[in-house]
Order: sequence, then structure tokens, then C-alpha cells
Amino acid sequence: MKVGLVGTGLVGGSLGLALRARGAVVVGQDRDPRAAERARELGIVDSIGAVEGADLVVLAVPVRSIPGCARSLGPVAGVVTDVGSTKAAVVRGGEAVFGGRFVGGHPMAGSERSGPDAADARLFEGRRVLLTPTARTEPDALARVAEMWRGVGATIVEMDAERHDRVLAAVSHLPHAVAYALAGALGALGADSFRGLAGGGLTDTTRIAATPAPMWIDVFLENKGALLEALDAFSAELGALRAAVERDDSAAIAAFIEGARAARARILG
Amino acid sequence: MKVGLVGTGLVGGSLGLALRARGAVVVGQDRDPRAAERARELGIVDSIGAVEGADLVVLAVPVRSIPGCARSLGPVAGVVTDVGSTKAAVVRGGEAVFGGRFVGGHPMAGSERSGPDAADARLFEGRRVLLTPTARTEPDALARVAEMWRGVGATIVEMDAERHDRVLAAVSHLPHAVAYALAGALGALGADSFRGLAGGGLTDTTRIAATPAPMWIDVFLENKGALLEALDAFSAELGALRAAVERDDSAAIAAFIEGARAARARILG
Repeated sequence: MKVGLVGTGLVGGSLGLALRARGAVVVGQDRDPRAAERARELGIVDSIGAVEGADLVVLAVPVRSIPGCARSLGPVAGVVTDVGSTKAAVVRGGEAVFGGRFVGGHPMAGSERSGPDAADARLFEGRRVLLTPTARTEPDALARVAEMWRGVGATIVEMDAERHDRVLAAVSHLPHAVAYALAGALGALGADSFRGLAGGGLTDTTRIAATPAPMWIDVFLENKGALLEALDAFSAELGALRAAVERDDSAAIAAFIEGARAARARILG
Repeated sequence: MKVGLVGTGLVGGSLGLALRARGAVVVGQDRDPRAAERARELGIVDSIGAVEGADLVVLAVPVRSIPGCARSLGPVAGVVTDVGSTKAAVVRGGEAVFGGRFVGGHPMAGSERSGPDAADARLFEGRRVLLTPTARTEPDALARVAEMWRGVGATIVEMDAERHDRVLAAVSHLPHAVAYALAGALGALGADSFRGLAGGGLTDTTRIAATPAPMWIDVFLENKGALLEALDAFSAELGALRAAVERDDSAAIAAFIEGARAARARILG
């Protein structure tokens, strides 16, 4: 199989390494020529060049770049997919260019690290990949994308693109916004005076706040409606906990904490 | 050295295991007779019984129980310390009973697990213990407590009790409140429909929200003033990020994220 990779960062790079380790030929490109060259040095791609002749083209660029990236490609012979963290607008943009040969995809794997040097051939092992086919999607296109992901160790879950975006707003985009706001609040409260005094709680709670901005600007804006709803639900919960603390209401704090623990166990259990 | 342990949960239990491994004799008690018996079975204590004759008595109970626990002890021969996550009120209560032989302490080590079965003899290795002596503290009492913690692998940092509480409100109590609110929000948004769809971001961000309620009810209420200030600083940050998303302001989102990343790096770096 010949795979064309547009974007050689953490996710694209990891996919390139994983596919080449399993015998695929990978041709790649990156708008940043240094990243492309670094991807070649690291063995993420066999060569740098045009991806249009590949059996499968993977668009691994920030979500808001996907429609433009799709339009800028020449005619492609094979199937096209992406790895974006939001899906409704991406699928509309992809289908506008490639019709039923475009399949929206979202590997649930990442890291606070970024760029080709963060690529990891095992990133997708045991992880879920969410695919969002529509009524237009050609069955063999969907099968080819699913086969690629299973080949690198992932499990496929199919869902509607709109549902994907609502679910991800809650389980991923909201936690990222909260983690950034928490790190920002520590900055406002006097970061330098806290140096060396943080425990594992702060380290874990803000780990994802180490992720660079470009990916998350796009995700937040692309999924704005669902994110704002999730943020408002979060602020209502935090407000309820704050009010219980303010009025010294031990029973309400206990009920809040036990409800939160139960919700977490249901989601992660 | 003979150590008396009041409370045999995660922190008290871990200290008992670590001290006994280094040759100390540990006598313990717990208001829950099953926890006390379990602590004896696990080797956390040599025996269950009165702690008043020990060289060093460690109060390892939820912070709001510390003053009452101190008053309920008979006359003690040695030094008394605690492991509570807030210090100003605890130190006032401890000094009211034990005068300059009470030393406030706070090991920066914990886990979302709890109870004697969660005890870990290595819990304090490489961790910081914050001690909050006052003008009344007897130098040899401070030295004895510091020596105990160094003996189990920890590093001592001394600070004023009021400063301790302000710092901990930011680096620990705020992240716990935020993590509980985040888990609560996921519950409100529909926990069951998210089952199996969470990634590492949500898992890490809410890890500390698995901690049972009793410890945190006490911490939140005991450090209410500083916690409410920290919560308000956090809400202001989250509101700024929300407003930037709502008005599609990529530049403001980028600036927010980069500020948050820089603050995190300053605190943890």
C-alpha cells in the first residue's frame, strides 16, 4: 500500500512510522520544509513529494487547514481521510472536494508533545479511532481507512459527525480549555512563588496545558457551539461547589464530590 | 525512636510502614477499629494502643479533626506534629494544647487512593514536606520532626503557616475543586454516553477527582478564604478564554494558551 501523508507532526509522523514499520510506502509533505526534511531523516516518510498518486491520502494538519488543504490537492486516485479532532465541518469540506471517497477520522491518541520528533510508532496501539462516514461514503473507502488504522493497532468506532463533535466537546475540548485556564490562573496568582511547591495533582491536572496553541485554537473555534455549551455546564458545576464551600455546607460538598466521583467512574470504568 | 500514630489511612499508614522499615517502634490508633486492625495486619504499626508515651506523636487525620484529636489526647511526653493539607488553624489548635512542642507539617505526597491498604512505604521518597514553625516552636521539636521526615526520604521546606495556606489554595486545593467540577460537568452532560470515549487528557485531568470526599470537605472549608480567591481567579481566566472563543479571536486564544503554558513551565520547571 502506498500512503500519502500531508503533515508530519505528532499524529501524521506517528502514523508514518507505524505504517512503514508494517511495509507500507509513505510519501509525505509538510508546509514547513524543515519538518518535512526532519520527517525524512527520522524515517517517517520514504520520500517527500506529491501525494496524489497514493492509494490513501491522510490529511494530518490542524482542523481549520483541512478544507483548504483538500482543495489544494490535485485529482487523487485513491481514498482521502483526515485525523482532525472535530468532524462535522471537516467532513462537509472533504466531501465537497472528494465526494464519497473522503472518510472523516479521529484517532483518540495524542500527547502534549508536537512535531516530527515527537512521533511514536506505537502511538495508536490499543487506542480508538473514531470514523464518521455519511450516506455518501463509499463502503470500500471506509473499509480501506478502517483497515489502515487496525493495521497500526487501533480499534474502530463509527459515529455520526455531529454526535462526535458534541461528545468530544465534553470529553476532550472542555478538559483542554479547563487545563489551560487552570495554568493561566496559577500564573495570575503568582506562578514564580509556587515554583517547586506543586504536587502530582497540579502536574497531572495541567499536563495537557503544555500542548502548543495551533491545534487547539482550531479545535476550539471549529467546535465553538458545543464547546461553549460544555464550558457553561462546567461553570455551573464549579459555581455550585463554590456556593457550597461559601456557606460551609459539608453535606452539599460531600454530595457534589460523590456525584463527581461516580460520573468519572462511569465514563472511565 | 517510638512513634505514636493517630490515623492509619494513606498518609499515616505510609509513614508507619516507612518508619518501621527503618527500625522505629510504631504504636497506632484509628477511630475506625477495622482500619486499626487492618493497619496491624499490614505491619503499619507494631501495636494498637495509647500514643501518649511516644517520643513523637503524628496526627494523621482530616484537618478539621486535628484540634479535637489534640485535645482528646492525654498529656504527652514528646513532640506532636500533623500531616494536614492546611496549616494556619491547625497550628493555632495544636499550639493551644501542646505549646511549642507542636510542629505543623504537610507532606506533599498523596494519591487518589485512601485507607490502610493504600499505604506505601516509599510514598515520601523524594517528596517535599512543608513545616510551619512559629515563634513559639521549640527548636528541638522542629529538629525531631524534620529528622523523622528526612529519615523516610523527604526534603524539608519551612514556611509561614498563612503563606502555606495561600500557596496550597492555588497549587493544590484549586486543582482539586476544578477536577471535581470537571467530572461533575461530564456527569451533567451525559456520562453514560461518553463511556469508553475518553482519552488520556480527561483521565489525567480528573485523576484527583477520584479522591473520596472526607479529606477534601475539610480542606475546602478550612482554607475557604484562600480557596474562594483562587476559584475566582480561575473563573476570570476561564471567562477570558470563553470570550475569546465566542468572538472567534484566534490571536487572543493563542496569547491565552501561550501564557498558560509559560505559567505552567515556571511552576513545574
